[in-house]
Amino acid sequence: MIGREVRPITYPRGEVRASDFRVVEAGVREPRPGEVLVRNTWTSVDAALRLRLREEAPPGYFPAFPLDEPMDGIMTVGEVLESRADGFAPGDTVWHASGWRDYAVVEAGRQALGGVGTLTRLDLRLAPPQAHLGVLGGNGLTAYAGLFHVAGLRVGDVVWVSAAAGAVGSLVAQMAKIRGHRVIGSAGSDEKVRHLREELGLDAAFNYRAGPLPDLLREAAPDGVDVYFDNVGGDHLEAALGALRRAGRVAICGMISEYTAEEPPQGPGNLMLAVTKGLTIRGFRGSDHAHLLPEMRRQMGAWLRDGRLRCRETVIDGLAQAPVALAALLRGDNTGKTLVRIDEVPHRENALGAARHRG
Amino acid sequence: MIGREVRPITYPRGEVRASDFRVVEAGVREPRPGEVLVRNTWTSVDAALRLRLREEAPPGYFPAFPLDEPMDGIMTVGEVLESRADGFAPGDTVWHASGWRDYAVVEAGRQALGGVGTLTRLDLRLAPPQAHLGVLGGNGLTAYAGLFHVAGLRVGDVVWVSAAAGAVGSLVAQMAKIRGHRVIGSAGSDEKVRHLREELGLDAAFNYRAGPLPDLLREAAPDGVDVYFDNVGGDHLEAALGALRRAGRVAICGMISEYTAEEPPQGPGNLMLAVTKGLTIRGFRGSDHAHLLPEMRRQMGAWLRDGRLRCRETVIDGLAQAPVALAALLRGDNTGKTLVRIDEVPHRENALGAARHRG
Repeated sequence: MIGREVRPITYPRGEVRASDFRVVEAGVREPRPGEVLVRNTWTSVDAALRLRLREEAPPGYFPAFPLDEPMDGIMTVGEVLESRADGFAPGDTVWHASGWRDYAVVEAGRQALGGVGTLTRLDLRLAPPQAHLGVLGGNGLTAYAGLFHVAGLRVGDVVWVSAAAGAVGSLVAQMAKIRGHRVIGSAGSDEKVRHLREELGLDAAFNYRAGPLPDLLREAAPDGVDVYFDNVGGDHLEAALGALRRAGRVAICGMISEYTAEEPPQGPGNLMLAVTKGLTIRGFRGSDHAHLLPEMRRQMGAWLRDGRLRCRETVIDGLAQAPVALAALLRGDNTGKTLVRIDEVPHRENALGAARHRG
Repeated sequence: MIGREVRPITYPRGEVRASDFRVVEAGVREPRPGEVLVRNTWTSVDAALRLRLREEAPPGYFPAFPLDEPMDGIMTVGEVLESRADGFAPGDTVWHASGWRDYAVVEAGRQALGGVGTLTRLDLRLAPPQAHLGVLGGNGLTAYAGLFHVAGLRVGDVVWVSAAAGAVGSLVAQMAKIRGHRVIGSAGSDEKVRHLREELGLDAAFNYRAGPLPDLLREAAPDGVDVYFDNVGGDHLEAALGALRRAGRVAICGMISEYTAEEPPQGPGNLMLAVTKGLTIRGFRGSDHAHLLPEMRRQMGAWLRDGRLRCRETVIDGLAQAPVALAALLRGDNTGKTLVRIDEVPHRENALGAARHRG
């Protein structure tokens, strides 16, 4: 059997380009005992993949993707075609971490992505398969662990979420609303801001490109904030330090503003405010909190069933479009979870124009 | 009765100069009911005073010192001359927060410096009066709260303390040693480094001026560190983020590198490491932890009695020398706690040359 794999062939400088990758046809080997063969149907596109498209990933992060090899450590959903592992049978819908390819041979029980990406059979009663890459998967875990455990959300906290229309931010913002908090969201377009206000029901939302960030934030949160959920870094983090009240907390999930920067980033010049206001700043990866997966899935599943959580998707059709989808995500051309739907017939490739939003 | 007060008359630009202050003779009023009259004997000199010698202190900090008024909110030890408050009698040794002056009229029970500076009778069995401005006072509280509560010291942690020869750093470093940790200290002169190694018994110590900081740190802690106690900020904090291991913690007590800077400071460019390594960065003021004062005093008192804690003092004689002492401290010309011994006879002023170290 032959399948396609998307492989990086050079590490991008600055923006990611489709030409940094190639699509390779490669033979798919038979599963050995303890392994399953999966036909992938949906694969995840995440901003943080950019951190691994470098000679060296940042210390402490998952390793860089080797050049001209299939990309290991990208969450993917698929259907089991053949199983030689206990507990898995043909027809099962599973997730695993061997994404950006048509077929994967996965060893059952083998830890991937800190335990989050280990081969797992999915409960489709909760949500359709691709939701397990977003709200019920890594993004859900990151949002849930970040808001409740890392930021330690407390009754009465005012919460600011940046990149609030993104895969993680939109979940954080909605969870904080469900828990009764005042929530401010920011995003990079007026359309996203409208989405935050009208569809996600945030108390305030602003387009960070519309003026000086500290002013926009002050207008949205005149009395300051207690929790800042950071997906952006840079000027956003600096503005947050200015706006945080005594004993405020920052959960840093990512710093998308730095991922494609070619200059070394500048840190916030006002970190001294952490001292004077007694602030706590914690960075984290969702995978550091893999033990929360079952709890998160139960809670998110319940909110999904009740219709309290809305999950928009930006779907790009065609495996070969994955690099284009990543580039678009890093530019901010997405709302909610970015997914690539893998086409069943190899070589059929749709243009990015075929991408569409599903509410 | 007439007493002297040291008053700021202009906010320093950059380095603090004696000419930014003047010494004023002012009448001392009689204590009213509930008040005591104290003759001050020792007054504290702390780097963070620099934060209040500005038009505006940083948000969340104690307010700026008004110009040409006595400086309120500086810890001081003295002897009660006259008491109209229950629980205080002439001859009592007390601390309070009305420093940098000969005499103070203090209202008993009135909160000062977040509760730390409230008028308190001192237990001289634990240590001589001036020790209550250092190891048994605000510095002790800051060190104790910072290491055990803010940084959450855990068994096996490797600890780096910057400004480790200073009033707070030297306590942090020694406490971590007493608890059995590997402790690295840094300071700004070879003599201080010798003090750290030979007198405080640290496992490693380096002069941060001796080379690129990341290299010096790597040499002292080849396997990285788990806790960084930050008194410096700037390049020290950046180096720490590089050296911290997974789930490492930073307790930021102060950022002396920024206090006299005229340019807006640059933050660490590697904050993304907080995400990839799951780091926690917490700023704090000792006074946020005033409730730990009794516990801290008991513990520090026991270590002092056992001779396990060594407290060097840099003593400057003469109230009028307080600004010079502050300037010297901010330049790093001190080891251990910097104290001004208030001369009994007004107008007798010793030159800074009279300063001496007491081991």
